[in-house]
Amino acid sequence: MITRLVLVHSSRCSDELVVDLNADLGEGVGDDEAMLTIVSSANVACGFHAGSPAELLATCRAAAAAGVRVGAQVSYPDREGFGRRFMDVGPDRLAADIVYQIGALEAIARSAGIEVAYVKPHGALYNSIVWHEDQAKAVIEAIRAHGRALPLMGLPGSLALQLAGDAGIPVIVEAFADRSYHADGTLVPRTEPCSVLTDGEVISRRVVDLVKDGTITAIDGTVLEVRAESVCLHGDTPGAVEHALAIRDSLKGAGIAIAAR
Amino acid sequence: MITRLVLVHSSRCSDELVVDLNADLGEGVGDDEAMLTIVSSANVACGFHAGSPAELLATCRAAAAAGVRVGAQVSYPDREGFGRRFMDVGPDRLAADIVYQIGALEAIARSAGIEVAYVKPHGALYNSIVWHEDQAKAVIEAIRAHGRALPLMGLPGSLALQLAGDAGIPVIVEAFADRSYHADGTLVPRTEPCSVLTDGEVISRRVVDLVKDGTITAIDGTVLEVRAESVCLHGDTPGAVEHALAIRDSLKGAGIAIAAR
Amino acid sequence: MITRLVLVHSSRCSDELVVDLNADLGEGVGDDEAMLTIVSSANVACGFHAGSPAELLATCRAAAAAGVRVGAQVSYPDREGFGRRFMDVGPDRLAADIVYQIGALEAIARSAGIEVAYVKPHGALYNSIVWHEDQAKAVIEAIRAHGRALPLMGLPGSLALQLAGDAGIPVIVEAFADRSYHADGTLVPRTEPCSVLTDGEVISRRVVDLVKDGTITAIDGTVLEVRAESVCLHGDTPGAVEHALAIRDSLKGAGIAIAAR
Amino acid sequence: MITRLVLVHSSRCSDELVVDLNADLGEGVGDDEAMLTIVSSANVACGFHAGSPAELLATCRAAAAAGVRVGAQVSYPDREGFGRRFMDVGPDRLAADIVYQIGALEAIARSAGIEVAYVKPHGALYNSIVWHEDQAKAVIEAIRAHGRALPLMGLPGSLALQLAGDAGIPVIVEAFADRSYHADGTLVPRTEPCSVLTDGEVISRRVVDLVKDGTITAIDGTVLEVRAESVCLHGDTPGAVEHALAIRDSLKGAGIAIAAR
Repeated sequence: MITRLVLVHSSRCSDELVVDLNADLGEGVGDDEAMLTIVSSANVACGFHAGSPAELLATCRAAAAAGVRVGAQVSYPDREGFGRRFMDVGPDRLAADIVYQIGALEAIARSAGIEVAYVKPHGALYNSIVWHEDQAKAVIEAIRAHGRALPLMGLPGSLALQLAGDAGIPVIVEAFADRSYHADGTLVPRTEPCSVLTDGEVISRRVVDLVKDGTITAIDGTVLEVRAESVCLHGDTPGAVEHALAIRDSLKGAGIAIAAR
Repeated sequence: MITRLVLVHSSRCSDELVVDLNADLGEGVGDDEAMLTIVSSANVACGFHAGSPAELLATCRAAAAAGVRVGAQVSYPDREGFGRRFMDVGPDRLAADIVYQIGALEAIARSAGIEVAYVKPHGALYNSIVWHEDQAKAVIEAIRAHGRALPLMGLPGSLALQLAGDAGIPVIVEAFADRSYHADGTLVPRTEPCSVLTDGEVISRRVVDLVKDGTITAIDGTVLEVRAESVCLHGDTPGAVEHALAIRDSLKGAGIAIAAR
Repeated sequence: MITRLVLVHSSRCSDELVVDLNADLGEGVGDDEAMLTIVSSANVACGFHAGSPAELLATCRAAAAAGVRVGAQVSYPDREGFGRRFMDVGPDRLAADIVYQIGALEAIARSAGIEVAYVKPHGALYNSIVWHEDQAKAVIEAIRAHGRALPLMGLPGSLALQLAGDAGIPVIVEAFADRSYHADGTLVPRTEPCSVLTDGEVISRRVVDLVKDGTITAIDGTVLEVRAESVCLHGDTPGAVEHALAIRDSLKGAGIAIAAR
Repeated sequence: MITRLVLVHSSRCSDELVVDLNADLGEGVGDDEAMLTIVSSANVACGFHAGSPAELLATCRAAAAAGVRVGAQVSYPDREGFGRRFMDVGPDRLAADIVYQIGALEAIARSAGIEVAYVKPHGALYNSIVWHEDQAKAVIEAIRAHGRALPLMGLPGSLALQLAGDAGIPVIVEAFADRSYHADGTLVPRTEPCSVLTDGEVISRRVVDLVKDGTITAIDGTVLEVRAESVCLHGDTPGAVEHALAIRDSLKGAGIAIAAR
């Protein structure tokens, strides 16, 4: 699907490389406190797949205290399945669900003194809008109807990001630190071997290469050119914090700053 | 509790009497379409006791088309019980629940081209903040934390309205068209006989008296002075629309306009 | 898919034709009281797409009083969408969800003095198990794991009913009184014109033909041979009760009894 | 409230002391695997305060494999608050909620090859039926309506246990290993200092004294006579497994067997 992706380095000034690190926080798993000292963006659940309002507020307050921006992690209404199951929600209902979630988190975030800075669909919805036209359109329609032109964070080459471009919605392209890629730029599905990387050193090197050279090496050795403004870290896998710390240190060693633009 | 309440007439110009009529809409019961031609304020559920985001949106759009303002009908998280059961929710959690609900409806309303104009707690929460200090404070704290100083609609003499005044939160005092009052200004509980009035003519006359004279006659004949800017109509009782129409016509006959301030 | 289906008449004695009529009850829409005087089987929601335990109990009690058997209308966990949206639930979770729902309704029904007599998947689940192998298997596994070998009510030719046969689970084949059929025995989708019949006389005649002759005339005139032990009536469409009464009277006129076997 | 409570030792044979140890399992917190090697009774959530059907099934299977009996931990419908908040649920609705939950867990447990052996209300419901007459009656009515006369586990002296006795419902009286008692037999509320014991040795000694001598020493030194067939261990507090192991070893050292009757 994606064969060549051009990296545009984020930069705060001419001689400094910058990358955004994002992670899911406030889901009741993982060590949020540690992750907030590392990442620059916190994806916060909006109550449809996880999180009570009080938990959302606690996460927003912690993010505010750590100087980390927050994004609305909108989801299918599926608490039982943690938003990980495709739901054939019609586009009008899906758009309304998303507007509702963004607004809810926005009010919570404001009461913590910060603004929601972007939208990142969660779980099965994240995957479905890569290809599901009605649902991808619904996400774009929701962001448009919401009215603040919040950037959409997602997978390069996904239908949703293409539609966002057409609609004048800003996008934040993300790469995955610990996932293998096929030569066409798609992620190796978790059901296949070697889909998830576990060696902290390898993961760190990939992130540095991604930022410095704009490349990711695919599972068959192909070197992909990838433009990614944000790198997604998993906060709930074994060794998550260790990997995140290793990435942070490698980035620092390579002279790359961690920051949201 | 309440012995004398001074009516301050709402007025658009010096020679015109005005009253706001409010009703719960979008709960899937009653004839919303008809009610929207009568009321000036629609209390819209926020998803905690009723209403999906798509239903909220449909109600907001209908209200916008009818020129009716909307209020956030915030509730305990109790769909099964339609928000009618007291829940001993701690104040921090309750405040977060309310901020979440206001924000969610706000985003939905904005996508329909209107703004949430006030907050009206629903069901058991409405009743508990008459006396429950922690919960009344939590409602005030939520409106304060939300940041737009939205007016709180509620019962005259209730603790929540007193606290709102202290906190600089505007209030909208409401009276009930079809409920009997005790001589102390409290409502006759529904569990007692004669608590609900069913004669449309009587109900209409009471509303006119309330607006023109600032009085309600209590169940024992005591004439209460009552200051009420809004009158609550029930949209889901038998004959609801007929009563509402009768009230509208009586108000018209008495030269009283129906409008939100 | 289905080209010839052999009707096996249900019969209580040699000279009497019998058909079961089933309808969804207790969903808070439609006139349950009237429908209970007509149908012989009530499909009762189990709380996943609709119905609180108290509502389930009220419906079971009403069914018990009317001498109508009840079936467990199991669903995806999707209250917001009334179970009408496909969910990609894994088979283990789906089977557990179904066992849970059957057990819950079983206890409620027993407390009303009756037993759950069959299982009828609801909404999107009903449709998905026509073709979705993993989910169809999960439904069969749930009935097997539950241990009472409850009959599965469903569409003739559906994968779930085939798998039920292989697994020794009894089946109840149903036809739809007010739906058009294609020549291959599938239902004309609701999104197409003429999918739903609205003429009470036509509907009644089709039901009588179905029971007496074992035939349904498809939308293109093809006469299908159909074996159906139960006919599904919709309780929530406009004129639902009138249609049901017309069907009852037509069946009576044709000497056909309405009864669950 | 309770001044003298007579201990009736559970005994499997004349020369052996036996006590049941129970703990909440399957709530996604704590080390269930370890606890299942220690306790003889597992309180399993029924989906109203925690637990999906698949999680309930996993817990029941693990309990079955470990030879541990399961009880239905019925709750208010309050996932957001984990069932820890009082809800003013009317008795008819509460009874239906409880029948529903018992039935649901029963079907799940049977599919795992075991039977639900008792009912233990959870969280705020556990506390409210100590004194709330309508709700205590509703719990008893639910167990009666359910029809299997399942024993009710609860606090000695509670209203619910008294009503159970009157209704012919068996009871399982429990004591708390790590909680302080007032001289009247009530628990020292968690909001007061010294309400929870944290010294494993002290806790173990109290459990042994309770079983051997039928006594608990209250916070003021009063020695209470207590009849308790089961001792509740907390599985989710820091050091929970260590305390549980210490209790197990102390009981073993004192010649006391751990077993459900």
